[in-house]
Amino acid sequence: MKSFKKLLTSKSKTGVPESSFKFGGMASLITLDVVPSPEEDSQKLKKAFIGLGTDEDVIIEILGHRDANQRKKIRETYHQLHNETLIDGLNKEVSGDFGKAVILWTYDPCERDARLANEALKSKKKGVKHLEIIVEMSCASSPQHLVGVRKAYCDLFNSSLEEDILVSVPMPLRKILVGLVTSYRYDKEMVDKDVARLEANRIHESIKSKELAHDDVVYILSTRNFYQLRATFECYKEKHGSPIDEDIMKSGKGDLESLLKMVVLCIDSPEKHFAQVIGTSIIGLGTDEDSLTRAIISRAEIDMMKVKSEYLNIYKSSLDDAVIGDTSGDYRKFLITLLGGKI
Amino acid sequence: MKSFKKLLTSKSKTGVPESSFKFGGMASLITLDVVPSPEEDSQKLKKAFIGLGTDEDVIIEILGHRDANQRKKIRETYHQLHNETLIDGLNKEVSGDFGKAVILWTYDPCERDARLANEALKSKKKGVKHLEIIVEMSCASSPQHLVGVRKAYCDLFNSSLEEDILVSVPMPLRKILVGLVTSYRYDKEMVDKDVARLEANRIHESIKSKELAHDDVVYILSTRNFYQLRATFECYKEKHGSPIDEDIMKSGKGDLESLLKMVVLCIDSPEKHFAQVIGTSIIGLGTDEDSLTRAIISRAEIDMMKVKSEYLNIYKSSLDDAVIGDTSGDYRKFLITLLGGKI
Repeated sequence: MKSFKKLLTSKSKTGVPESSFKFGGMASLITLDVVPSPEEDSQKLKKAFIGLGTDEDVIIEILGHRDANQRKKIRETYHQLHNETLIDGLNKEVSGDFGKAVILWTYDPCERDARLANEALKSKKKGVKHLEIIVEMSCASSPQHLVGVRKAYCDLFNSSLEEDILVSVPMPLRKILVGLVTSYRYDKEMVDKDVARLEANRIHESIKSKELAHDDVVYILSTRNFYQLRATFECYKEKHGSPIDEDIMKSGKGDLESLLKMVVLCIDSPEKHFAQVIGTSIIGLGTDEDSLTRAIISRAEIDMMKVKSEYLNIYKSSLDDAVIGDTSGDYRKFLITLLGGKI
Repeated sequence: MKSFKKLLTSKSKTGVPESSFKFGGMASLITLDVVPSPEEDSQKLKKAFIGLGTDEDVIIEILGHRDANQRKKIRETYHQLHNETLIDGLNKEVSGDFGKAVILWTYDPCERDARLANEALKSKKKGVKHLEIIVEMSCASSPQHLVGVRKAYCDLFNSSLEEDILVSVPMPLRKILVGLVTSYRYDKEMVDKDVARLEANRIHESIKSKELAHDDVVYILSTRNFYQLRATFECYKEKHGSPIDEDIMKSGKGDLESLLKMVVLCIDSPEKHFAQVIGTSIIGLGTDEDSLTRAIISRAEIDMMKVKSEYLNIYKSSLDDAVIGDTSGDYRKFLITLLGGKI
C-alpha cells in the first residue's frame, strides 16, 4: 500500500463523479403513478386486519407497491391513527414465510438489516452462510445505508454491531467483518490504476503466503471504493491468470476463504451475488425461504432487474419462473409482486 | 475479550439510557432569545463586508452569537441573496488568526473537522500533536458527528478519511487511528463491570509486553462506548495502582505512547483534554493560535463551561483571563465572545 493518490477516470455529465449507488430503472418494484394518501393506505390495511381472517390480497396490493419512503409514511400514519405500530398490527395477522416477508419489507430498510444482522450473530450457526447479510450490507450497499444500519443496531440492541461481531464471530473472520462494517467508502467512481496494480499484487502475496486476513488485505477491502476494488480484481486476473476468488478458494477450503469469496463477489458484482443467493435457495431439496426472502426484499427497489438478467445468464431460466415454481400461496404472490409480476 | 454482555447501570427518568453527548447548559456560546431572521443577518454581514475596510465588530456580534443551526441558515440565505457563499465573502474580508477563526466557526462543524483533519494529514509534520484533531473527533464527539465528518471528507477530498490516514500515517499509529475514525460507538450510558475488569487486564498485559497496538487494544478503544471505557480505565487504576496513561508513558516515549495517552485522556475527560490543549497553546514562548482556535471553536457550543472549570483546576487561573492575556485585537474579541464574555 504505497501510493494512495487518486486519478479521476470517470465523471458524469456535470463533471462530478457519480455515486455508485444510482441504479436508475433497475428496481423491479412497481409503484403507482398516483399514490393513495398514507391515511387511505392505513385505513385499508386496518380494515384488512379486522374481522374473521385477514385479507392478504389487500396487504400485498398496498405494501407490495410502495417504495421505502411511502412505506415510512404509512408506518407513521398507521401508528398515529390506530395507536399501535403497523409492525405490531401485521404481527398479529400474518405468519409463516409470507408473514416474515411482509414484516421485513415493512421495516425501515436500515432497521430490517440491523435485525437480520442481529439474528445472524445470535444464531450460533457454524460456517459463514448466515453471515451473508453482514457482507451484503457492507459490500453491496451505500455507505449511508451501512451507517444507518449501525445506528439502528445501537438503538435496538443496546450494543454496537461491532461489539456483537467481536463476541460472536471467531478470529480471523471477526477481523474481516469488523473492517467491513466500519467502512465508509468514497461513494463515487474514482479509480487509480497504479494503486489497483499495487494492491492486486499485495493481495496475491497474501494468498500465496496464506495470510488472507493480513492487515493490508483488510484495509484494501474495507477502505477502497467499489470501482477501485473492481479495477484491482481486474488487474489481479490480468496479471495472475485467474480470478481472485478462484485463487482464494484454491488456497484453502475453510470459513475464511468462503467469507472472502463472498466479499469479493458482493463487491465485484452484487447482482451476481444475489442471483446466486436466490439460485442456491431454490435449487436442490427444499427451499431456503429466509435467504430467498432476504435477497428479493433487499434488492427489489435497488437493482433486481440486473439480478434477474444475471440469474438468466447463470441458470438459463427465468428468476420469476423459479420463484413461482418453488413457492406457493400468499408468499408466492407477495414475492412475485415485488419482482414486478402479476399472479 | 471474552464476555461482551452488557448490564444496564444508568438510566434516565424515562428508563431509556441517556446519550453521552447531552451537555445541557455546558456551552459557553451565548445565543439570543429573539434571533434576527437569516435574511437580516445576511444583509448586515454583506453590509459589513462592503466599502472601505470591514466592520469586524458586526461579524463578531452576529456570528459569535449564533449556534450551528442558526449559522447554517445564515450560510444558506447569504448564498441565495448574494450569489456567493458566506465563506467566500468572509475569505475576501478577513485574514490572520481572526479570519481563520471566523471561517472555521462559520463552516458546518462536520465540514470544519474534515478540513482540519485533511490539513493535519497533509502537513507532513512529525510527532502526533498535529493528529490531535483526528483523536478529538473520534474520542470526544458523538458517533453522528464522526460519521458526518467522514461523509464531508469524502465529499470534499475525493478520497475517504481512512484512505488518507493509511497513506499519511505510519504503522502502528495508522492502525490506532483507522480503528478510532471508523468507530460508531453505542451512544448511551451502559456499563458492564465484568467486561471492564477483563479489558483493563487485557490492556495491562499489552502495556507490560509492549504490544500497545495489539488488535485487542484497538478493538477495545474503538468499539466500546465512552462510559464503558471510563469504567475500564477506573478498574485499571484500582487493580494495577496507577492510571492507565501513566503506565503507557512509562512503557515508552515514542509517538505510539503519546497518541495512546491522548486517546485515553480524550475518552476519559474531554474537558481536561481541551483545557490542556488551551493551556499548552498559551503557556511558554509564543502562542499556538491554531490549537487555541480549534479548542475554543470545537467546544464553545458543547461543554466549554466544563473546560473552563477544568482549566481553573489545573492552572489555578481563569481560562478567559489567559486568552485575554495572550491574544489581541479582533481575534481576542471573537474568542472571548465565543467564551461567553464581553470585551
